Amino acid sequence: MTTDNMELLLNVLHKTGLSPEEALELLNARLTHHLGFAVVDGGRGIRSALPEIVLASGKSTEEILDVTDSLLSSTGLAIVSRLEPEFSGRVLERFPDGEYHVRARMFVAGDYRGGPGPGEGSVALVSAGTSDLHAAEEAAVVLEVMKADIRRIYDIGVAGLHRLSETLPVIRAASVCLVFAGMDAALPTVLGGLYRGPVVAVPTSTGYGTAFGGVTALLSMLNSCSPGICVMNIDNGLGAAAAALRMIRSPE
Amino acid sequence: MTTDNMELLLNVLHKTGLSPEEALELLNARLTHHLGFAVVDGGRGIRSALPEIVLASGKSTEEILDVTDSLLSSTGLAIVSRLEPEFSGRVLERFPDGEYHVRARMFVAGDYRGGPGPGEGSVALVSAGTSDLHAAEEAAVVLEVMKADIRRIYDIGVAGLHRLSETLPVIRAASVCLVFAGMDAALPTVLGGLYRGPVVAVPTSTGYGTAFGGVTALLSMLNSCSPGICVMNIDNGLGAAAAALRMIRSPE
Amino acid sequence: MTTDNMELLLNVLHKTGLSPEEALELLNARLTHHLGFAVVDGGRGIRSALPEIVLASGKSTEEILDVTDSLLSSTGLAIVSRLEPEFSGRVLERFPDGEYHVRARMFVAGDYRGGPGPGEGSVALVSAGTSDLHAAEEAAVVLEVMKADIRRIYDIGVAGLHRLSETLPVIRAASVCLVFAGMDAALPTVLGGLYRGPVVAVPTSTGYGTAFGGVTALLSMLNSCSPGICVMNIDNGLGAAAAALRMIRSPE
Amino acid sequence: MTTDNMELLLNVLHKTGLSPEEALELLNARLTHHLGFAVVDGGRGIRSALPEIVLASGKSTEEILDVTDSLLSSTGLAIVSRLEPEFSGRVLERFPDGEYHVRARMFVAGDYRGGPGPGEGSVALVSAGTSDLHAAEEAAVVLEVMKADIRRIYDIGVAGLHRLSETLPVIRAASVCLVFAGMDAALPTVLGGLYRGPVVAVPTSTGYGTAFGGVTALLSMLNSCSPGICVMNIDNGLGAAAAALRMIRSPE
Amino acid sequence: MTTDNMELLLNVLHKTGLSPEEALELLNARLTHHLGFAVVDGGRGIRSALPEIVLASGKSTEEILDVTDSLLSSTGLAIVSRLEPEFSGRVLERFPDGEYHVRARMFVAGDYRGGPGPGEGSVALVSAGTSDLHAAEEAAVVLEVMKADIRRIYDIGVAGLHRLSETLPVIRAASVCLVFAGMDAALPTVLGGLYRGPVVAVPTSTGYGTAFGGVTALLSMLNSCSPGICVMNIDNGLGAAAAALRMIRSPE
Amino acid sequence: MTTDNMELLLNVLHKTGLSPEEALELLNARLTHHLGFAVVDGGRGIRSALPEIVLASGKSTEEILDVTDSLLSSTGLAIVSRLEPEFSGRVLERFPDGEYHVRARMFVAGDYRGGPGPGEGSVALVSAGTSDLHAAEEAAVVLEVMKADIRRIYDIGVAGLHRLSETLPVIRAASVCLVFAGMDAALPTVLGGLYRGPVVAVPTSTGYGTAFGGVTALLSMLNSCSPGICVMNIDNGLGAAAAALRMIRSPE
Amino acid sequence: MTTDNMELLLNVLHKTGLSPEEALELLNARLTHHLGFAVVDGGRGIRSALPEIVLASGKSTEEILDVTDSLLSSTGLAIVSRLEPEFSGRVLERFPDGEYHVRARMFVAGDYRGGPGPGEGSVALVSAGTSDLHAAEEAAVVLEVMKADIRRIYDIGVAGLHRLSETLPVIRAASVCLVFAGMDAALPTVLGGLYRGPVVAVPTSTGYGTAFGGVTALLSMLNSCSPGICVMNIDNGLGAAAAALRMIRSPE
Amino acid sequence: MTTDNMELLLNVLHKTGLSPEEALELLNARLTHHLGFAVVDGGRGIRSALPEIVLASGKSTEEILDVTDSLLSSTGLAIVSRLEPEFSGRVLERFPDGEYHVRARMFVAGDYRGGPGPGEGSVALVSAGTSDLHAAEEAAVVLEVMKADIRRIYDIGVAGLHRLSETLPVIRAASVCLVFAGMDAALPTVLGGLYRGPVVAVPTSTGYGTAFGGVTALLSMLNSCSPGICVMNIDNGLGAAAAALRMIRSPE
Repeated sequence: MTTDNMELLLNVLHKTGLSPEEALELLNARLTHHLGFAVVDGGRGIRSALPEIVLASGKSTEEILDVTDSLLSSTGLAIVSRLEPEFSGRVLERFPDGEYHVRARMFVAGDYRGGPGPGEGSVALVSAGTSDLHAAEEAAVVLEVMKADIRRIYDIGVAGLHRLSETLPVIRAASVCLVFAGMDAALPTVLGGLYRGPVVAVPTSTGYGTAFGGVTALLSMLNSCSPGICVMNIDNGLGAAAAALRMIRSPE
Repeated sequence: MTTDNMELLLNVLHKTGLSPEEALELLNARLTHHLGFAVVDGGRGIRSALPEIVLASGKSTEEILDVTDSLLSSTGLAIVSRLEPEFSGRVLERFPDGEYHVRARMFVAGDYRGGPGPGEGSVALVSAGTSDLHAAEEAAVVLEVMKADIRRIYDIGVAGLHRLSETLPVIRAASVCLVFAGMDAALPTVLGGLYRGPVVAVPTSTGYGTAFGGVTALLSMLNSCSPGICVMNIDNGLGAAAAALRMIRSPE
Repeated sequence: MTTDNMELLLNVLHKTGLSPEEALELLNARLTHHLGFAVVDGGRGIRSALPEIVLASGKSTEEILDVTDSLLSSTGLAIVSRLEPEFSGRVLERFPDGEYHVRARMFVAGDYRGGPGPGEGSVALVSAGTSDLHAAEEAAVVLEVMKADIRRIYDIGVAGLHRLSETLPVIRAASVCLVFAGMDAALPTVLGGLYRGPVVAVPTSTGYGTAFGGVTALLSMLNSCSPGICVMNIDNGLGAAAAALRMIRSPE
Repeated sequence: MTTDNMELLLNVLHKTGLSPEEALELLNARLTHHLGFAVVDGGRGIRSALPEIVLASGKSTEEILDVTDSLLSSTGLAIVSRLEPEFSGRVLERFPDGEYHVRARMFVAGDYRGGPGPGEGSVALVSAGTSDLHAAEEAAVVLEVMKADIRRIYDIGVAGLHRLSETLPVIRAASVCLVFAGMDAALPTVLGGLYRGPVVAVPTSTGYGTAFGGVTALLSMLNSCSPGICVMNIDNGLGAAAAALRMIRSPE
Repeated sequence: MTTDNMELLLNVLHKTGLSPEEALELLNARLTHHLGFAVVDGGRGIRSALPEIVLASGKSTEEILDVTDSLLSSTGLAIVSRLEPEFSGRVLERFPDGEYHVRARMFVAGDYRGGPGPGEGSVALVSAGTSDLHAAEEAAVVLEVMKADIRRIYDIGVAGLHRLSETLPVIRAASVCLVFAGMDAALPTVLGGLYRGPVVAVPTSTGYGTAFGGVTALLSMLNSCSPGICVMNIDNGLGAAAAALRMIRSPE
Repeated sequence: MTTDNMELLLNVLHKTGLSPEEALELLNARLTHHLGFAVVDGGRGIRSALPEIVLASGKSTEEILDVTDSLLSSTGLAIVSRLEPEFSGRVLERFPDGEYHVRARMFVAGDYRGGPGPGEGSVALVSAGTSDLHAAEEAAVVLEVMKADIRRIYDIGVAGLHRLSETLPVIRAASVCLVFAGMDAALPTVLGGLYRGPVVAVPTSTGYGTAFGGVTALLSMLNSCSPGICVMNIDNGLGAAAAALRMIRSPE
Repeated sequence: MTTDNMELLLNVLHKTGLSPEEALELLNARLTHHLGFAVVDGGRGIRSALPEIVLASGKSTEEILDVTDSLLSSTGLAIVSRLEPEFSGRVLERFPDGEYHVRARMFVAGDYRGGPGPGEGSVALVSAGTSDLHAAEEAAVVLEVMKADIRRIYDIGVAGLHRLSETLPVIRAASVCLVFAGMDAALPTVLGGLYRGPVVAVPTSTGYGTAFGGVTALLSMLNSCSPGICVMNIDNGLGAAAAALRMIRSPE
Repeated sequence: MTTDNMELLLNVLHKTGLSPEEALELLNARLTHHLGFAVVDGGRGIRSALPEIVLASGKSTEEILDVTDSLLSSTGLAIVSRLEPEFSGRVLERFPDGEYHVRARMFVAGDYRGGPGPGEGSVALVSAGTSDLHAAEEAAVVLEVMKADIRRIYDIGVAGLHRLSETLPVIRAASVCLVFAGMDAALPTVLGGLYRGPVVAVPTSTGYGTAFGGVTALLSMLNSCSPGICVMNIDNGLGAAAAALRMIRSPE
């Protein structure tokens, strides 16, 4: 949400005597744009921890461009996820100031103007292997756009325990730990037994055969022997970033 | 962990010049008890957000009693989960000062002596229906034992949206929201669009036919349109409580 | 079915003293064409709510052209579904008066001459997101060909509830509501609690990972907390259109 | 909803100048009862085609009695579904004027005072076998309580096609046809090719081995060659009844 | 098996005083060719109802050519199944007297010299739709090579029952009936109730969404209400042909 | 079908000049009994290879008795399958001349009066283990009632190949071979490579863990390397018997 | 196999000039007993690493007694697995010298007279939790009967890594390591990264919800990041023991 | 691990008085290389039976080259698995002394300098068909690099039992037997009944339809009637090779 919109919200609230619910309703109406094939929800960044993000898959390039345009105009920030490299050219052509992140398959244009709140914590992004980075980087891009403080700790799977041991102090210093792992996904369990903070586990589609495109990693994480491991959908780096933001941002 | 043990930890740390890692190792050794069929991990409450909890299923009653006894002696607190009512009699007979919670199928003896940390947040426990309470109450009992500040908001599923609307202010005031839902589990998505804080969703085994004992609710939650919803194993109230504790307790 | 055929039916019935069953049998025989690899069922539009529609997948282009030709000759209308864009050229070349609908992947040639019955209801087509439009438009094309009165209400998923609220009056005015949603498919449940008429829910293959190509949305819909939600196969817009026609057309 | 409540609604609407939305909100508030473990939604019968029905499974007998009592007081009608015979005694003892339907596993107390609307259609309940009657009768009881006009046509599976042929005229006369079938569920496809009206197919858990408790029947129905077959959850007679009511009741 | 080999078998048996088992062992040894990557089993046509058939998938083109060559030399007949069109050119180049059947994806070179036995029955090949012909033609090619007497009856699915009725006399005249159907696969059940002979049902991968590539059709067939329906793997036309040959050939 | 009915059929056919179709229709009508909850299909034994068999599961004892009575009166034979031992007492009390087969869980009353046709073949019943006998005996009882010539060859699984070798001559002499196996179900493949006649494979629910109640055995059989193995539903001995009857009985 | 039989084998081999294959055939014939419902394979202990073991499930008590008796007579040793406690009484009554192991659900009568071979290795049995002991003890009983040298190391799951560290020297001294774990089964991966010898992983049915009765543990083990982990069926302690024996016994 | 490193290990151990654990820690640190996106674990070949192998899938070509380079420098050997042919060119260009194995999809550069230990056993690689060779050759390449003594015995599936019989003596002479099979995977069971040594079964993705990409073969192997069969992930030739090395190498 842009600073202008933020000020609008304050004006509406303080000058007209509206209740917060009524102010939110007005704001929703003002920030909602009807494109026929889509209803762009520009106010989501106010109601929730993350602004609306455009899921590219299932949309035509024209539709992606129109929604991006609409979000950029109303909120000053547009993030497009799951944008395959072959479509990134046309998007960059239209929005030359934006940036395309290949590994994360994300396009970002504009800035998040909210800035980090006072005393917000840092986020550790831990991966079991190099093949998990597509998901980890999806989270990293979102968190960087949202101005969170992140640490990347990649390829420390438990088949070589010493790699985890030497990075434990960095992990323990973080407020939230996102763990990306495929195959048997044993890392979150070992980590969860050595770290007291919140662990958000993201199964990745790494592996073959009975890895079942990440289902095995998902099931393993859901049944972790270390209690309190939270689990996201397969390869859902974006969701993990949102979960981290929900945890480190102050709710109001 | 008992106050005595806490003091032991401090003594070990400050008087002997050990590094924290070395102190932890010593403590692990002192608090670990070998029963032959089990290795009781009395130090888990120090390393992680939750002390070791005894999973009753798959253990004989004798084994449950012995592990309970061992935990109670070393840490002053024993929690037994998934204890079916027909076995609760023998456990209560042995530990008459404990309490059995029927709906949560939990037995608790002793006290958690850690107390809440300064400025710890509150936890909202929200259920879609009355049939989800077995899981919600499992979380509630654990959180109450751990002296967390909880709110119960039960049976507000989205087939009657007005029930959710009228409780939103209470939910919004909580630091973490645990949502328990079976069947189509639509509640976390609607809630996640109206609440900025962390949402931990627990699928329940409520429903029949293609509810598949909670699998449908789990899948629905993993695919929530509201980004950042964290998901636990089916009926895993205990895990949700642990996740909440990881979030509201300060990491160190 | 063409007007000529309709008259034929009446003549057979009234002039020859046949019972309706016998007339139907005669008609079936006359309107059935044997192509060797296919038996074209030109009389289906009389026996059921929808004429035979050609499923392109699994057929060679030659076979598609021959069946289309046969239906067009005998009934004056041919609809081809699941026709991928790369094959549409050859079909349009052969039937230049037809139209190809890209998003719906449908080809239509000729006209439905039955016309709407007196007092037939309208159909609301509601989608949770833009990525669900391939299925929604498949239904829309069929309903438009069949001269039903439709309303398109797209991209109003419940992660932003206000988008649903503002369109409720339009939805409530419809006789039947078709809802298209992927991922967690929470929309039909919320809608079903606010709308008294029949709801036909179509899961879409939108999503990734544990969306399982629409299976999660399907399961969610089958387990809706709002009773009386009817469910179709994944991405089955055509079936949803047929269900709507069964509901709004008078049975006889 | 009772006649008294209906009048209340009219008064609120016409005398106080409230909009329908506001009136509904007031009504929701008045008809909602908070029992701590449940929020009884007495107004659901006004907003939707079916009043709230108590799902007994997952509730204690005390809870069932309390919710039943609350519904009976506020709306004059209470329906309890999935009530196993061994619990029916205590329910009948408390509500001696109610009736327990063994095959449908349903308890009904009080009356639906709405009555059928003018010109409402009839509902045909068709089963493939005798083993499907538990689901068919669940639908039948609900429809009878709601004063719908029903026809029972049981055990006419297509392994003996003549049984279907001789009942076709009765089926064709109905406005809606509910079909209950397990195993391969071939009946809805054959029926759907011979009947123009809406077909609601309910898979039943009849069969063994790869019948998978009704999953095979469900999948078969979702993939029916006859377009426009609507499908419900396994054994969901109640849902099928609700779907029928949505179709035959006038929406307003 | 060639006539020469047949004579060899007789000579071995009658002239050397060997038991049938010993003769078979000798024959196996003589007709088995070791290619390093494969052990070609030229004697299978004697021990079983069908000679060895080369499954092309998973083999390199070189390997396909070598095995084909080996079979042709030792038995006078080579059948290659699942040969995709793009590889057929090289195979035809090497064996220009052979024939490639596009729809069945089969290549055949040489002749079966056994000929039909006296009084062997005929085989009806029935398909529900045109999209099932890839599997039906795989069976047809094998049966024609093996000189069986076949009837093709295609596209008579039960959504238009009259198409089945008019072909029943032809079906009833056959000794064995192979039925190919995808989607809900209702045809074998209806047919099995009207035909007394053996029914071999082949599920096809026709359909989309919950058709699950033929799994739904398979499950439907396994749970047929008509007892005695035999089921093959999905799209396994070759296996159905082998089953038919086992039934119509005299065992010795 | 009783002799009396058989004569009726002949009379109808020869004396009244009816076509076979018309005669069948008349017969169907005469042999069909409407019990309200069931439509007993006494003519199935004429149209198909097996008379109607009463599936006990899902029926009340009263219903089982009524259907048995109806079949016995009209056809002289009643077979009840899946009748659990605890219900057999009441059935025997009502039909004291019948017999209950514990292992097969079948009740038989009356006689099949058709008798074997001239030159009918024999059926070999082969099981991999002793734990498969519940299914094998279900087939055996049906085949004995239908006066087929059967051979029992039990517990010859391929972990001890010599057990199979020594019984091969008996198997090879049979016209049809039914194979019952659970777990990995390797027996049908080995047998199918050594026997030329039709093989009907019945997966059994024997095993634990990933045996998945017979699903693994089913999948193994469907993917047999020996072509032409026919597969039935799990534990479906009755279906295997029906398949064998379809094969050994002359179609007319 | 008893000493007497061992001597018989030697006599047959050395005195009669038979080839080993012929001797084995003779022995198979002599040690095979036909009980009608079972063919007892007394020679399996010679051909394979483990004598025949009686699987109790799916057999009547009479059958269990008869097979046990047959094995005891011919080989001097009988092991019955999966014998539920309620049936152990009758077995002990008949064979009072045997022993019933409750946790392993195994009955053993007689002795294995083979003895350990020279230089055979030891087997470590490691479990993640106490709830896995039913499977671990099944393996332990078999290995003890077969006179293997075993070490029990129970309840050292990786949520508390120090429990594993302190037992590593014992594990590393073993020739083979059997690991029993349920839920997420992270233990074999961590162990496999710290131990060079063969690891046989046995998933257990410990856990609930998405533990799916051990399927999740199985999948996790199959996808272990530590290469070379061998996996057995769920709860298959017996199979793990057999695998260990195959590894530590000299093949000849 | 290179000879130089080996000497380093000895020096560290014997000259500095370190315990083996401390020496291993030092070595781990020295042989671990941090590339940012990967932490290369050069010491794995010392701690486990197999050095680290680079899984190409999920990595960019640049990353593959960098990790290969790092391993080659520190240990003198780099193995890349699952390297698709289209990427092999660039890898060979960079490491021209390496070799690419097409069928195994593996690249190998450098040498394993450990050499076989004294008295190490041989490994038999057995495949059921030619289509299983992609997995068998993956194991063969690894074993050859590790200087194991291997035997290839391909295409001896049990549909032609004589092919197995004639190779049994070679198989029986091996210390370990790796069996590769798809479809119904009956071969390991038959083999396991005829061979006393360890059997490692690798399911392959060979087959179609319900072969489910190797899942059926996997399930069949897990449920083998021959006890003690160890199972690997689908197509996991590399894992099977590692398992064999764990078995034939002396643990220390």
